[in-house]
Parts: sequence; structure tokens; C-alpha cells
Amino acid sequence: MGLKSFVHVSEGSHFPLENLPYGVFRRKASSEGADVARPAVAIGDYVLDLSAVAEAGLFDGPHLKGSTSFSQPSLNKFLEMGRPAWKEARSTLQKILSADEPVLRDNDALQKKCLVPMSEVEMVLPVVIGDYTDFFSSIYHARNCGTMFRGAENAIAPNWYQIPIAYHGRSSSVVISGTDVIRPRGQGPPMGSSTPYFGPSLKLDFELEMAAVVGPGNELGKPIDVNNAADHIFGLVLMNDWSARDIQFWESVPLGPFLGKSFSTTISPWIVTLDALEPFACQAPTQDPEPLPYLAEKTHVNYDISLEVSIKPKDHDEPSIVTKSNFKHLYWTVTQQLAHHTINGCNLRPGDLLGTGTISGPEPDSLGCLLELTWNAQKTLSVGKSSRKFLEDGDEVIFTGCCKGKDYNVGFGTCTGRVLPAFP
Amino acid sequence: MGLKSFVHVSEGSHFPLENLPYGVFRRKASSEGADVARPAVAIGDYVLDLSAVAEAGLFDGPHLKGSTSFSQPSLNKFLEMGRPAWKEARSTLQKILSADEPVLRDNDALQKKCLVPMSEVEMVLPVVIGDYTDFFSSIYHARNCGTMFRGAENAIAPNWYQIPIAYHGRSSSVVISGTDVIRPRGQGPPMGSSTPYFGPSLKLDFELEMAAVVGPGNELGKPIDVNNAADHIFGLVLMNDWSARDIQFWESVPLGPFLGKSFSTTISPWIVTLDALEPFACQAPTQDPEPLPYLAEKTHVNYDISLEVSIKPKDHDEPSIVTKSNFKHLYWTVTQQLAHHTINGCNLRPGDLLGTGTISGPEPDSLGCLLELTWNAQKTLSVGKSSRKFLEDGDEVIFTGCCKGKDYNVGFGTCTGRVLPAFP
Repeated sequence: MGLKSFVHVSEGSHFPLENLPYGVFRRKASSEGADVARPAVAIGDYVLDLSAVAEAGLFDGPHLKGSTSFSQPSLNKFLEMGRPAWKEARSTLQKILSADEPVLRDNDALQKKCLVPMSEVEMVLPVVIGDYTDFFSSIYHARNCGTMFRGAENAIAPNWYQIPIAYHGRSSSVVISGTDVIRPRGQGPPMGSSTPYFGPSLKLDFELEMAAVVGPGNELGKPIDVNNAADHIFGLVLMNDWSARDIQFWESVPLGPFLGKSFSTTISPWIVTLDALEPFACQAPTQDPEPLPYLAEKTHVNYDISLEVSIKPKDHDEPSIVTKSNFKHLYWTVTQQLAHHTINGCNLRPGDLLGTGTISGPEPDSLGCLLELTWNAQKTLSVGKSSRKFLEDGDEVIFTGCCKGKDYNVGFGTCTGRVLPAFP
Repeated sequence: MGLKSFVHVSEGSHFPLENLPYGVFRRKASSEGADVARPAVAIGDYVLDLSAVAEAGLFDGPHLKGSTSFSQPSLNKFLEMGRPAWKEARSTLQKILSADEPVLRDNDALQKKCLVPMSEVEMVLPVVIGDYTDFFSSIYHARNCGTMFRGAENAIAPNWYQIPIAYHGRSSSVVISGTDVIRPRGQGPPMGSSTPYFGPSLKLDFELEMAAVVGPGNELGKPIDVNNAADHIFGLVLMNDWSARDIQFWESVPLGPFLGKSFSTTISPWIVTLDALEPFACQAPTQDPEPLPYLAEKTHVNYDISLEVSIKPKDHDEPSIVTKSNFKHLYWTVTQQLAHHTINGCNLRPGDLLGTGTISGPEPDSLGCLLELTWNAQKTLSVGKSSRKFLEDGDEVIFTGCCKGKDYNVGFGTCTGRVLPAFP
């Protein structure tokens, strides 16, 4: 039996008392306080307004008593406080939402202030993202892409086994789930002429990723030890790192992806904490060769998070599942990623995003992007009554992710975006 | 004869009335108001506190009257206002600082509030940098690096002539001139073994760059036309994009530079506006092949900015010049860079930095980094009584940049940083 809240949590809900993921919401336009964005946790079909909880004096532990970290339009201040404050908040919230605890259960006026139906809110970006980094940590994804473009012999470069390879992404264009994505224009490779293609991308793709949200972070020049790295990760979100493959391929030599990625990156509104994911920790894949000492971690874990991608073409009534993967497939763990990121002294700040890279699994139906699923348009993927090589205008792409426990789920909700036609 | 201010401007100063570059300063620790950072312009050996000028009601034009843009700890709000406000500020400041204008000249109390000797201030980062992008726009630099690693035949990839190639940089580690740079640790290529090198970088380098500071910017999905791009560039700074070549080479395949760059990037404190640079505009190099229409600009200009790099080893009394280059050598202009950056819909925000990439010139003594000057340590560069292949601990690297007019300079001051030993 899972934990019991006085707030109704339907069977199969992603948001039982065991989860309590963090987001930032705004009441919809017609309501009172519609313009104010405030932190919340999700419980069942409600959001619990943490600024109202704080105002009622219910955060009474040593870290959060009197703190203004929830009267902010983002979670950055709370993230900066670190794990002791996070644990205290979780314990307070599990207590006041529990079926046995009268303080909120028996106070209708306070409930009205604190609990808002999800249907009455709009979620916004949960954090101000200073920097967004994208890793490349699935060996299946790396091998598939390498095989496609360099042949099976040279699929994975030797550095990949030593380094959690990554590139800097664009933080200005990280958007919240539900934001439309305008098909980017740009240059593609010349097609039988000396001039490059120019126009709307012909190879628009999704990338099934997750991202770690950074907590306190580090001062410039002071690396974070891999065995302390978990204390700097608040939680995970789903992430769609939309990619224009034609733009990406033409521009990437020699400095890597740029405009092929920077037009939009979508994240899910709810950050699931590492504390909530703890019961779903599982051994990460054995690494061969052994990583260098600064990447060798005592606790080498991933999480068993089932991931699913659906596409809903505009003339379809229902989305169709196109791939199923799992976070546990990642070769490099998020703690190794974080330790590597800081080994040169680079400073991480609260709210920074560390994307995992496309999470492909070993099976043909567990590949994390259309590039792999259609082998760069050499094959066709069936999507309900339609088929796709790459995304078409009007397609809605829906990610979901969930840890399935015996009696409850710890889920991420969805991360969605619809493709709009290119700028004329 | 240049313009005349009542503030003394010594001959050869970088900061006459024609310049008025923008920065953000703080009074040194012992003074009143030491903790408050405020915008200023430089004039001679003084900074003019713009919050004090605003408080005195001297910004009386339609854009700036009553504006709070100078009572901020960064220039972002002023940058967001756009060129009409920038022009108004320049005209107001040139007037109130002029030798003929009594309002400030004859008011000792007000002068005391507004004019602070540079010796009494500390400069801080002038802008909050949302995203930092680094281009690769010198054909000489591209050709030299390409020749070194891929041979003269394949030195420059075909996309380079069509695209202002760039990668996303790290914004958290952009620091102000004068900040020490800790030698990064990291992985380098395996040297005669199967295991990579790990330790302090053995190939620490500077990169002589400049960066454009973005003004209003654009909404996600709405590109900026190349012929309007200048309205989105507030001005330029000097930039040292410190690079650890061993880390960079080992990590860069296939996603580009990451930890080889992200440990520190230094910018000069003063942003010289495009308005101040206008008299030094010069025709940019002819582009062959012609750029695609979205990059074809009516006004294709660079600026004639002489650049110089000196190194001062810790046991030397004086710095020694190691290279002289010029901004005018850039193949892709900053307006083309900006238009390209947004063609896919990527949004730029006020305060974003667009680095030019290393500015090498055609002559052997105009190369913009040690990698080129020593041909990846195959040659030795003499630095006063010492010599260098790459940077050593204790070395101070000093950039300076200046436009030399007939009767005056428009200069950038210096951009400096000293190398400290690696974290133990």
C-alpha cells in the first residue's frame, strides 16, 4: 500500500504522495493572482501552492522557517539551499498532505488558498536556466549515429568511453511543455549543386532526453567530487531536444551542433526529485574501460524510468506510440556527467540543466529519435494510419516518463510540443 | 581637433568625449556605497556614475526621462531600450561633459557625486549574460588551425564559406578583466598508452577575440534581418577566450569544444558603442562565394580596431608584445553573425555575447593565439628574456584594442588575466 493523502489521488496517477514533484504555476488569466508565478508541488490532480503553505507558517523546520524561497517566481532560491532544505520540505509536505494530519485536511479556508486544481493553472518554466549543457551518454544512440555517418568500424570514437561527451546548448530557447515549436529555417547540405539548401528544415526531429536540474553548484575553479555530485542534483525532468538534422549536419564541422538545436528545447513542468526517485535506483551499466579516478563513483546508479514517445499528426484523433525506452540505459550517470562538467573548474549554478542526450535503448523499438528510427529517412515509421520519415507540420510530439512501483507510480507527467510551419 | 570636455583627458587616452564606453562599477571596499554596482561611462581617468546623472535629472530626453535603467546593477535594461535610447544617452552625455556646458562643469557638489576617479573604483561584469556564443570568423585562424590538423588541402571545410560557424559557449564562467584564471585540469589525448592523460592542462592558450554585446534581441521564432542587425548590437568588448588545447583536442569529436573552453572567458569592462566606432568603419573583406541572400548585407563593414596582446611572465618587470592584429580582418561581420544566429528562430536577449572567434591577421606576427604562433608547440615564441610554447603559471596576458583617429583615440582599455596553478 502506498502513502495515503487526504487529497484524492486516482489509481495510476503520476503524482501520489510519494512523488511531490516541484514546478512553478500561474493561475489562469481570469483568476485572482493570475500574473504571479509561484512554486508548487503536484499532488493528484492539484497543485499545492508553496507560497501559501509558507505564508501559513507550515514550513517550521530549521532550514525553511521564515525563508522567502517559495515567494519567488522560480525555484532557483530553493535549489540553492541544497539537500538538507529539500529533505526538510519533502518531509513537511508529506506530513501536511497525509490523510492522518488535520492541519490542512480540516481547514477548508487554508485548503482553498493552498490547493488549486490543475485545470485552473498554467505551468511555466520552473527555473531560470543560466546554462544548459547537453550530454551524449547513450551508447546505443552514439553507436547508431556513428554507424550511419562513419560506418560500423568507426561508429564510436575512442574518447567516448573515457569522457561523458557534451556540448553547450542554448538556454534562451528552452521552453515549457505545451509551447509550439516553429519549424526552423536554415542552411542544409548542398544537394547536387555548389550552393547549400536554404529554407524550412526538411529533417525536423525530436530527441527523447531527460535533464538533471542543478542544485547549489560550485564556485569557479572548484570542481565537485563525483561522490558528492548527487547533492548538487535536485531532480530530473523530461526533455525534448528538437533537432533539425539537415541544418545540424551541414553546420557541425568542426565546432559541433548550433542552429540545428537552438530553435527550441522543451522541458516538462514537473521536476521529480532524486529523493522521490530513490526507490527506483538501479545499477548503471558496467563501464569498460574503467573510468579515470575522477569519474569512478562509489554509488554508480541510474533510475528505472520507463519512457515513451507518441506522435499525434494533426488529422489524427489519438497519438500513436513510436518508441519506448528507459533512463536506465544511460552509460554515463548524471553524477558522472556533473563531476566531469566541473573537473576543469567550470562553475554550475542553481537551475542549470544537464541534458542526458538522446536515450536510446538496445532494441529497434527503443530508439530515441526519428533519425535512428527511420535510419536517416531510409526507412518509414508507421504512425497510426500515417507514416513518417521526419516530423511534419501539425505533428504533436508527446513524451511521458514513469517509475512504476508496486502500489504507486512516480511519474513525470508529459512533455509536449506541436510543430508549426516555418516563418514565411 | 577632437571634442573638448571639462574633464581632463590626457593625450593618447582611450576615453575621450568621442568614446564614452559603458561599464558597471563599484566604489572600492572602504568607500561609501561600496556594495552598490551602477552603470557608468568612462571619461579620461574618471567614471561618470549614470545613476547619479539620472538622479540629478540630467537625462531629460523622451526615452530616458524618468527611466530606471541606470539605477540597476547591470546594463541589461538600458540595452533592451534600443538604439533611440542609446543615441539619446550619448548625446546627453556628450553635452553635459562638454567644456562649454556649465550644468556639471560649474557644480562641484554634483561633480563629486557623479565623477569618480578610476583609481577609486572596481569594475564588474557590465551585463548579465544569458547566453554566450563564440564564432569562428577569421579566415586566417580557420586556415591555420585546419592546416595544422587536417593538412593544407583540407584546411577549410566547404561550409565555412557559407556559414558564420559558431558554437554555444559557457556563460557562467565569463569573468571581468583582472580576474585570475586557474589552470584547468582535465583529460588530454593518450600519449603512447591506452589511457588518456589526466592532470593540469599542458597546453593553456589565450585567444584574441572581441565580442558583440546584444541589445534588444528578438522573440523566439522571429529572425532578425541582416540589414537591421546593427540595431541589435550595442557595442563591442575585448575578449580572451582562454583555451586548453589538449583538453579541447581530445574532447571535441564529434560535438565540439566543451571543457577546453568553459573554465574561463575574460571580457574587458568597457563596452565601446557602435556609435563611437562609426568613424572607424571600413569595408569588410569581399566574400567569395557570395553569401546566401539572408546573409547578403547592404552595409558590409568591419571596424579598424588595432589589437595587441602582451604577456608578462611573473619574473618580468614589463609585458612583452607577442602579437598585433586588427578587427578588420574578420571575414564574417558581426551583423552577419547576428542574422545567422537568429535565422532558425533562436532568440537573443539583451546582454548576450557574440564572440568573433580568434582574430588572426595574414602576417606571421598577427596570429591571435599561441597555438598558431608556436604552431602547436613546434616553434618557440620569444617573450622578452623568456620564451613560450604555451602559457605558464604566473603569466599575465594583456589585450588592448584601440581605434586611432587623427586627433583622438577610441579605445577599449585592457582585458587582462593572470594564470594561477591548477587546483591540487
